[in-house]
Amino acid sequence: MKKISILGSTGSIGKQTLDVIEYLEEDLSVVAITANNSVEMLAQQAKKFNVDYAVIMNQDHQAQLNSLLSDTSTEVLTGLAGILEVARLGDIDLVINSVVGSIGVKPTLAAIKAGNDVGLANKETLVTAGELVMAEAAKNDVSILPVDSEHNAIFQALEGNRREDVDRIILTASGGPFRESSAQDLEQVTVDDALDHPNWDMGGKITIDSATLMNKGLEVIEAKWLFDLEFGDIDVVVHPQSIVHSLVEYHDHSTLAELGAPDMKVPIQHVLTYPERKNNNLESLDLAQIGELSFEEPQTDLFPCLSYAYQAGKIGGTMPAVLNAANEVAVAKFLDGQLKFVQIPELIKLVMEEHQVINKPNLDDIMAADKWSRETAEEMRCQLC
Amino acid sequence: MKKISILGSTGSIGKQTLDVIEYLEEDLSVVAITANNSVEMLAQQAKKFNVDYAVIMNQDHQAQLNSLLSDTSTEVLTGLAGILEVARLGDIDLVINSVVGSIGVKPTLAAIKAGNDVGLANKETLVTAGELVMAEAAKNDVSILPVDSEHNAIFQALEGNRREDVDRIILTASGGPFRESSAQDLEQVTVDDALDHPNWDMGGKITIDSATLMNKGLEVIEAKWLFDLEFGDIDVVVHPQSIVHSLVEYHDHSTLAELGAPDMKVPIQHVLTYPERKNNNLESLDLAQIGELSFEEPQTDLFPCLSYAYQAGKIGGTMPAVLNAANEVAVAKFLDGQLKFVQIPELIKLVMEEHQVINKPNLDDIMAADKWSRETAEEMRCQLC
Repeated sequence: MKKISILGSTGSIGKQTLDVIEYLEEDLSVVAITANNSVEMLAQQAKKFNVDYAVIMNQDHQAQLNSLLSDTSTEVLTGLAGILEVARLGDIDLVINSVVGSIGVKPTLAAIKAGNDVGLANKETLVTAGELVMAEAAKNDVSILPVDSEHNAIFQALEGNRREDVDRIILTASGGPFRESSAQDLEQVTVDDALDHPNWDMGGKITIDSATLMNKGLEVIEAKWLFDLEFGDIDVVVHPQSIVHSLVEYHDHSTLAELGAPDMKVPIQHVLTYPERKNNNLESLDLAQIGELSFEEPQTDLFPCLSYAYQAGKIGGTMPAVLNAANEVAVAKFLDGQLKFVQIPELIKLVMEEHQVINKPNLDDIMAADKWSRETAEEMRCQLC
Repeated sequence: MKKISILGSTGSIGKQTLDVIEYLEEDLSVVAITANNSVEMLAQQAKKFNVDYAVIMNQDHQAQLNSLLSDTSTEVLTGLAGILEVARLGDIDLVINSVVGSIGVKPTLAAIKAGNDVGLANKETLVTAGELVMAEAAKNDVSILPVDSEHNAIFQALEGNRREDVDRIILTASGGPFRESSAQDLEQVTVDDALDHPNWDMGGKITIDSATLMNKGLEVIEAKWLFDLEFGDIDVVVHPQSIVHSLVEYHDHSTLAELGAPDMKVPIQHVLTYPERKNNNLESLDLAQIGELSFEEPQTDLFPCLSYAYQAGKIGGTMPAVLNAANEVAVAKFLDGQLKFVQIPELIKLVMEEHQVINKPNLDDIMAADKWSRETAEEMRCQLC
């Protein structure tokens, strides 16, 4: 029986993680769950899975959670301290970090330092602090297992192979809902348009990031750290059907790929049961029924976020944290109706141009750059009005 | 430096194997080569690669080969005995068996019994004697590395995974040149039509087998033995572009595939350098340029050879050897203009219906069934005139 903490259990990935665990209840159990504000859902999950710990980030909900769980043996914790505590638990086998945003970095580091393997769905961990995090993972002999379908595909396509034989990796991108839009079309994009992702059932922030290609840009930076690659060895191809989840080309020009129906439960389960695999009731791949898989170059002229991510990654230091934080602000402003879709990359570019990079940053430097970027993005947004 | 014997060095796979070895001359060397009748090409290859042994199967060419190699240190051998001798050599690392036809079985067994790993391009080895051969390989702790692009893809997609986690494999088939033909069209097929394979540069026999789907049928039987599968766990999908070379679906519905440009040198090199990989000058995979990959169900009503192969495989015993030998005769008769394209499966079916199966056959039983099948096919051909 594998014991698991899920950080961010009420989000899209967290809920699907619980679905997988429910199906595989003979092999997997949940010890702790956390949420930011969704106190009622968290309490329901805590009861259903009979967890030892339920953590609510926003302390305003503590009394309500205590009340909801008063007839259970579940211990209620709060705030970042509570999240860090369940990331560090001594008798667990895996921490699933599906927290959204740069707040997810500290729990990843806490889990690693406690020697707990991490199933990583928090993009910001590696985007903002990849060098630090991978060094800590190596030092503590901890495995970082990628939950993201693209990185999970790369992870699977690397299994049984030698890293020195890798020529490049190719991340696939759905291209988002505006893949066939013109520059004029993009000027008119509404929030509802952007939230309508063609393939994947995901949260709001990541769906907008898919539409701008920033999601793929952040994945490029994650892949750099996760798989110890140069940016020149990471390519992106648009693949609207999201069936080929990503590929690894080796020096001998054998290319290995992981494929499947676009269902996050597959990579989630892979991480949960690794290195074993378990039967499930998910969809089998029917290529004849799918009929066609198509591929095209990403349109970085219309979707410059992908290029900005490569730039930030190559510059390194605190720049990826700045890119990421400016993007978070820009997406939030877009979702609030305060920024047009096409202004998301514009705002990010303005903030990146203002940033004084710190090389080899420590976690404080990264957090400070994150904070600076958010403030600067707020200020500079007016330049676009 | 890996030392290699190539059985069938003047055929399509043999020549491409030598091309790969020439490119990787710092890592690979050829110790012995063999040919049936192409004595001049064999002599040229012997000189170019400075081999220790050159074997000509047809003893009529012995004097000519001796003469052509008189100013070299290459030892000339002849006949099946010569081929078996270079398969058994004590100081070699790998035997590439690219002999065409059921004559290739004995050299495979000879190599295995001598403890030499085998790079297998001879389909008949596993089609006719799979159970025997795999048992010998296990007993002698010898690796059978598949050269065929489909099986090589499966081999690569299995690496680093546990066999018990495999749900099924999916072999891709180009569908051949007549994929979009009607039953009426197939009645009119000429030899030139059938030799015009859309993707792969291969020999004549295998090109016809691709057009009838028998090639895929034989590969299904090979895969059964090579990867220890049930026939129910081996599927075939038609994929005209031949970019996805085959796939493995695991129990958790992760599906791993090997992809690449349709170039036999990639799997050949993989086998030659395994478990390492080496740089080469072959084509990189450009999915955006390829644009579309398509997939469809095989049309077994128009191409019944695929069904006959599954049937023969499930019946087992000597039946696969009978299927294979009847097919060899039928294809030869088609290439000679003595049989129509659509009569190839008809003749095979007639022969299979006549066969009294021997279960758990030894090599003599298999060879006798092969001989019986050829004779019966010759006789029964008249029923189709």
